[in-house]
Amino acid sequence: MYSFEYLVSEIKRKKSFLCVGLDTDVSKIPSHLLTEPDPIFAFNKAIIDATEPYTVSYKINTAFFEAAGTSGWESMKRTFDYIPKQCFKIADAKRGDIGNTSNQYAKAFFETLNADAVTLAPYMGNDSLAPFFEFEGKWGIVLALTSNPGSADYEQQKIGEKFLFEHVVENTCKLGSNQNLMFVVGATKPEEFGLIRKYAPNHFLLVPGVGAQGGSLKDVVKFGLNQSVGLLINASRSIIYASNSHDFALKAAEEAARLQFEMADYIS
Amino acid sequence: MYSFEYLVSEIKRKKSFLCVGLDTDVSKIPSHLLTEPDPIFAFNKAIIDATEPYTVSYKINTAFFEAAGTSGWESMKRTFDYIPKQCFKIADAKRGDIGNTSNQYAKAFFETLNADAVTLAPYMGNDSLAPFFEFEGKWGIVLALTSNPGSADYEQQKIGEKFLFEHVVENTCKLGSNQNLMFVVGATKPEEFGLIRKYAPNHFLLVPGVGAQGGSLKDVVKFGLNQSVGLLINASRSIIYASNSHDFALKAAEEAARLQFEMADYIS
Repeated sequence: MYSFEYLVSEIKRKKSFLCVGLDTDVSKIPSHLLTEPDPIFAFNKAIIDATEPYTVSYKINTAFFEAAGTSGWESMKRTFDYIPKQCFKIADAKRGDIGNTSNQYAKAFFETLNADAVTLAPYMGNDSLAPFFEFEGKWGIVLALTSNPGSADYEQQKIGEKFLFEHVVENTCKLGSNQNLMFVVGATKPEEFGLIRKYAPNHFLLVPGVGAQGGSLKDVVKFGLNQSVGLLINASRSIIYASNSHDFALKAAEEAARLQFEMADYIS
Repeated sequence: MYSFEYLVSEIKRKKSFLCVGLDTDVSKIPSHLLTEPDPIFAFNKAIIDATEPYTVSYKINTAFFEAAGTSGWESMKRTFDYIPKQCFKIADAKRGDIGNTSNQYAKAFFETLNADAVTLAPYMGNDSLAPFFEFEGKWGIVLALTSNPGSADYEQQKIGEKFLFEHVVENTCKLGSNQNLMFVVGATKPEEFGLIRKYAPNHFLLVPGVGAQGGSLKDVVKFGLNQSVGLLINASRSIIYASNSHDFALKAAEEAARLQFEMADYIS
């Protein structure tokens, strides 16, 4: 149970709408952690401890944990359990399947891992997403316009008068409200935020692509901010891999603080 | 490493192009298995032993294992390890993300779990799928036209002169060949197989929707069969839940044998 109102209040309290992305790759973490019983969790724990003052959300990229198999899933569980409950916990899993299967994914992320939200891929249509919106107090975050060049292949193609991503936002709004539905919109496409806001003026948008992918925070705010802030800006690699040495957590905190400082200006 | 030629030879040897779907829901398996140390694996093992003579492939629906958390992931690993190497092992995971993340998913399924193939969701475009095709001897199976009603929302919408699913098949063919690329096409849409075959005449199609979802094997064969057979017909619930009692494996074998018997007629 993580409400819209609580998220807005946390954003105002911390003067931050940052989401720290935990794309934890065991081949990239500082070597001194490799002797820990669970190096992936040890890394995440240190990053969470260091960045928590500057962020309202953590996004766990499930792929990086699944790559390590059973032990990776255990590290993922430990990480979800460790994140303070004040922070909005996102499973970045991009799931979506026929109804009975989506229901199982919803159980995996909302019940077994106790995530507040899960990212969803809409290709199979609304009935593939609907089961995720049947969990009280949990959120679905649907891919609309992503930050990668491949977004031009389908997302930015027109069906009738509208882009596919516009149809996705319009249709998905039938499944939930701004109390349980967000959209993924890449920071590399700031000029398209207006089109998204046409259908989802009051929803939060989860915005990856600031940092390693080159998107601009200033532009995202210019085109995407609404009265409730309505943005969660994700940065992953630029924060968690700010240093590869013993000072990695300190450097991660510095980078998170730098983004938070820039964000504070935009929060009234 | 599982080659196109080997798959075709196994289909001819067994006179079957059946894929048994392991959507193993712990709440649906016979209650006498619940005292086993790993009930999900015990169920899968019995199903595999009973159905192996009649099937060339197993499709593991990752959602059902993820719902059980770490122990579910362990059951999934045991199941992949147990499937005889003559059978084509599919991770039905419907993944797809930006490149560095898709690469991690590919490692999870192709290396950690040693699947031969993984199903992929194309919403984010070709660059989100490309990393899966960089693993020698491994396969990507891309969602084209799915069996659920929601396929009308986007898949069956027109971009220019073609349906979205046609664009997906056409574009994805640039990433691989019939030696490492298949498409998911629902059995509930047999009349659309001709459109898929226009772009992928020599590829295998993975066809869910026969059985519980109501698709017809006869119609799928009529519109989808090619010179190498080119079809893997999946049945999940109609086989694995044919009985909920002590005879569940026997009844699963009977249902698999019934489908195999029907398929034998179509294999020259």
